[in-house]
Amino acid sequence: MDFTPPTADQLLAIKVSAGIEELAAHERYGAATSDTVEAIVEGIGAFAAGEWAPLNRIGDTAGAKWADGVVTLPDGYRAAYQAFVEQGWNSIAGPEEFGGQGLPFTLATCVLETLGAANMGFTLLPMLTVGAIEALHHHGSDAQKALYLPKLVSGEWSGTMNLTEPQAGSDVGALRTTATPITDGPHAGKYRIAGTKIYITFGEHDAAENIIHLVLARTPGAPAGSRGISLFIVPKIHVNEDGSLGEANDVRCVSIEHKLGINVSPTCVMSYGDNGECIGEMVGRENGGLAAMFTMMNSARINVGSQGVQIAERALQQAAAYARDRIQSARASSTDKTPVAIIEHPDVRRMILRMRALTEGARALLYYTAGQVDRGALGDEAAARRAELLVPLLKAWGTDVGCEVASLGVQVHGGMGFVEETGAAQHYRDARIAPIYEGTNGIQAADLVTRKLGFENGGVLQALLGDIAAEMEDVPEVAALAKDAAAIGQWMTTTASLDDKLGGSVPFLTMCAVAVAGWQLARQTRQSNNPAKTAVTKFFNRTIAPEARGLGAAAMAGEELLYELDSAALVG
Amino acid sequence: MDFTPPTADQLLAIKVSAGIEELAAHERYGAATSDTVEAIVEGIGAFAAGEWAPLNRIGDTAGAKWADGVVTLPDGYRAAYQAFVEQGWNSIAGPEEFGGQGLPFTLATCVLETLGAANMGFTLLPMLTVGAIEALHHHGSDAQKALYLPKLVSGEWSGTMNLTEPQAGSDVGALRTTATPITDGPHAGKYRIAGTKIYITFGEHDAAENIIHLVLARTPGAPAGSRGISLFIVPKIHVNEDGSLGEANDVRCVSIEHKLGINVSPTCVMSYGDNGECIGEMVGRENGGLAAMFTMMNSARINVGSQGVQIAERALQQAAAYARDRIQSARASSTDKTPVAIIEHPDVRRMILRMRALTEGARALLYYTAGQVDRGALGDEAAARRAELLVPLLKAWGTDVGCEVASLGVQVHGGMGFVEETGAAQHYRDARIAPIYEGTNGIQAADLVTRKLGFENGGVLQALLGDIAAEMEDVPEVAALAKDAAAIGQWMTTTASLDDKLGGSVPFLTMCAVAVAGWQLARQTRQSNNPAKTAVTKFFNRTIAPEARGLGAAAMAGEELLYELDSAALVG
Repeated sequence: MDFTPPTADQLLAIKVSAGIEELAAHERYGAATSDTVEAIVEGIGAFAAGEWAPLNRIGDTAGAKWADGVVTLPDGYRAAYQAFVEQGWNSIAGPEEFGGQGLPFTLATCVLETLGAANMGFTLLPMLTVGAIEALHHHGSDAQKALYLPKLVSGEWSGTMNLTEPQAGSDVGALRTTATPITDGPHAGKYRIAGTKIYITFGEHDAAENIIHLVLARTPGAPAGSRGISLFIVPKIHVNEDGSLGEANDVRCVSIEHKLGINVSPTCVMSYGDNGECIGEMVGRENGGLAAMFTMMNSARINVGSQGVQIAERALQQAAAYARDRIQSARASSTDKTPVAIIEHPDVRRMILRMRALTEGARALLYYTAGQVDRGALGDEAAARRAELLVPLLKAWGTDVGCEVASLGVQVHGGMGFVEETGAAQHYRDARIAPIYEGTNGIQAADLVTRKLGFENGGVLQALLGDIAAEMEDVPEVAALAKDAAAIGQWMTTTASLDDKLGGSVPFLTMCAVAVAGWQLARQTRQSNNPAKTAVTKFFNRTIAPEARGLGAAAMAGEELLYELDSAALVG
Repeated sequence: MDFTPPTADQLLAIKVSAGIEELAAHERYGAATSDTVEAIVEGIGAFAAGEWAPLNRIGDTAGAKWADGVVTLPDGYRAAYQAFVEQGWNSIAGPEEFGGQGLPFTLATCVLETLGAANMGFTLLPMLTVGAIEALHHHGSDAQKALYLPKLVSGEWSGTMNLTEPQAGSDVGALRTTATPITDGPHAGKYRIAGTKIYITFGEHDAAENIIHLVLARTPGAPAGSRGISLFIVPKIHVNEDGSLGEANDVRCVSIEHKLGINVSPTCVMSYGDNGECIGEMVGRENGGLAAMFTMMNSARINVGSQGVQIAERALQQAAAYARDRIQSARASSTDKTPVAIIEHPDVRRMILRMRALTEGARALLYYTAGQVDRGALGDEAAARRAELLVPLLKAWGTDVGCEVASLGVQVHGGMGFVEETGAAQHYRDARIAPIYEGTNGIQAADLVTRKLGFENGGVLQALLGDIAAEMEDVPEVAALAKDAAAIGQWMTTTASLDDKLGGSVPFLTMCAVAVAGWQLARQTRQSNNPAKTAVTKFFNRTIAPEARGLGAAAMAGEELLYELDSAALVG
């Protein structure tokens, strides 16, 4: 199944929802001229379609293979990664002093979105590297930056993020990996790392020449919980002071998981210090690891939300092509009894329109969020706050959209959808990870109703919903949804208990996200004069927005409904 | 992961929603005393948990294997099927004159529900046999019944249903398999069958000693379309007049599909008459094949709807056990910072409650439908009509519930859910077939708004929704939903175009199904005095019913919204 990059819709979202022209008006982003933006969006589209999309299926069927500590990617992947690095796609938004192009996050978002639509599992590799770059750029010493950033920015080396341990999943503070200071010898000042980390994406692979692991661990005597964790650089291969590669570090990939999807992405169990010789260096201050991790998290969560858009786009394209080509049955309402393409049948058409409305809605939310991040980086505090508020909406709703659209994609194919060779099932399997990792969607919803709703005592959320209601006077369904969400936000801010809020957090998050997506789709419609966008937006407004309003009762159902039964009675 | 049969909830649903005591008051079902009912529900629970559930995982990992036309099931399956046959579980509702027990369909429903919760993929084997029994019992000649029914009723032989061909999926009328009359020789009066059928569930396997294929084909000169198809018995091994097995028929399983799930169930490509020697005999009258197939379809659709309940039950049990046992993080609202079982966290609790409310709601709809079928068989015409109306609701919404609950089950497990060894992912994969086969859920919704809504000019639907509204005065959410659905049904009956109806059919179906499920849950609550049922029902009413009301706008969105774009503009 060929992949066509969604260039036109991306350019529209980048223009209207991210507001790229406004960004380019600032000196820092002056390079983001409309010519450059088009060149990037079209260029990554051509690259992704030509180099990464054709590998998507073999990535699923062959998958990453582990043998004796070494992970090998399927045929073609090493070359595809090398081409990606050589063409400079890894460095779009990287810091200029370390070889990056310093362009807006919005454009890096577009690069990852396009690559991920072509090959979601493989795009995790550069995604993780972005996180490592950010953590080092914000928290590393000058020496660390000079030593590690140039090759991470270029993509010659990749990065990982090591939080989870078997007993510490969503509760990062429960981790036990240790970091013991080394007081003499060649590694004096560094730390000996010991522990096991699980679910380490691309923790080991053969596409980059080195892997820079960022590892959370505890120093001796550190406080319990999340206040006692520090961040460490642990290279797979030691890096000499001149930047050349030295000996292998005492790090080993013990196994990889057998997963439901994203099979090309090795999900590694990593063992640090089996021989007591795993050397790491601290990043930032002792016990400041969580703050450093939070730096990586915002963009990582945006990029995972983007994965929902990615898989939705791919599933939509495949289903739309099938619906256009598959001829079956005459249209029931027609006197002509000639069989027609199934796209002509009302319910198939409804499914394709829904897939498209959800996909484009989630994309609108993605670029609106990315644009706010860029404004924040330019010093706009309100935009920075709004971006933080948007992140959980995008991560959770975007990934829910990915799952729903992939499932509809299977359905459009009928029996063929359940046959693996068709490829629709791969999307359904791949999509399912995104609501889980990088903070489950429940964690996102908790972040929304506790931390983010708390910004200015609910004011940041109310300002967003107020903007929507004000601008959507001619889109009554979206305005009504925004007003419902504002009222629930008000209740959560003033009256609700913590458990009331948490219990209603997921449906509330969906309401907020749909309101923002509907708003941005409407703004895109006004500025594009494109009949397809108009029709898709109208479908979104008339069906998806009212459906989201139907979640209001669940959002306000309250804790009593949840705790009426004790746990034993609930789970039998 | 152990499986505990949901005996208490099944008994409640059988009592209240199917109304088993009323059924047992009729002479025909006099054997369904409360002791017998309990013995069956408990007996099949013990059998399913002990014999079939432990094989569920190997059925997925090893799967059915094809080699040179022969399909072999994984270790343990032959013995598990033999035990099932020997204990008489296949014959619960079979006709007494052919060795069946003649008990209500409600109890056969319970047998399949329980087996399928233990092992959904394998339960397709007896499910398909039920269809063959029904078709032969209603449409076969006395000689055919005498020859084939005893061993199908016992389960020694299994049955299949052969509709689909590569060019004829949902459009059965497009099929091309031929049946040529044989005028002389030992097979005079029979037919030579030639053609290829796809998606034939358990078309070949090694657990039963013979397979009786029911095959739709065209006789020479038959009218085009669905009015020109006839039904044929095509045994895998010829059956001699004395009932003994003869030579192999010219039938071959050419391959099996590589599927997303239900891997133990071989989905076969069947080739009939490769050597021109495939012999079949006609069932019923020439060109009457579709009517015969419809006989099988009603119960088959109920049993597929049941699969949604089955997979939901299994996924719920697994997720609930995990949520009860997995300790992580203190409860946010508590001053005690000791980590607790995740079931204590509000959003996990919400997920488990939602899973349970959906599962029990779908089960309530299942047994309400089964009870109406049984009343119909006793001559109650109104019940028979209502059963026909309920079938698409159950098939479509029940299977949607299966998918949603299985997906929530993955989510409750966090990262573990995405790892195949956990087993939650298998449910997510297995569940996905049920909205597709036995008439896609879109086909069910079309059946609802065209054929079923047409019964008595909308009267059958309005009577059902009127009963709900009248009995639900103390459950305002369900009453409101029923009234909304009634108003939409009224619009569809009087004003809406055919494309309006079809375009809104899926959301409308969901509204109707949720209304019936909420009603039946409320009736069960009133009669059970069980605090768990009360709490689960309240959760259903307060969250799921209002959510379904939110679908009203989509149900009435109308055809213009769907056809504003032409197909080329829609699919790019």
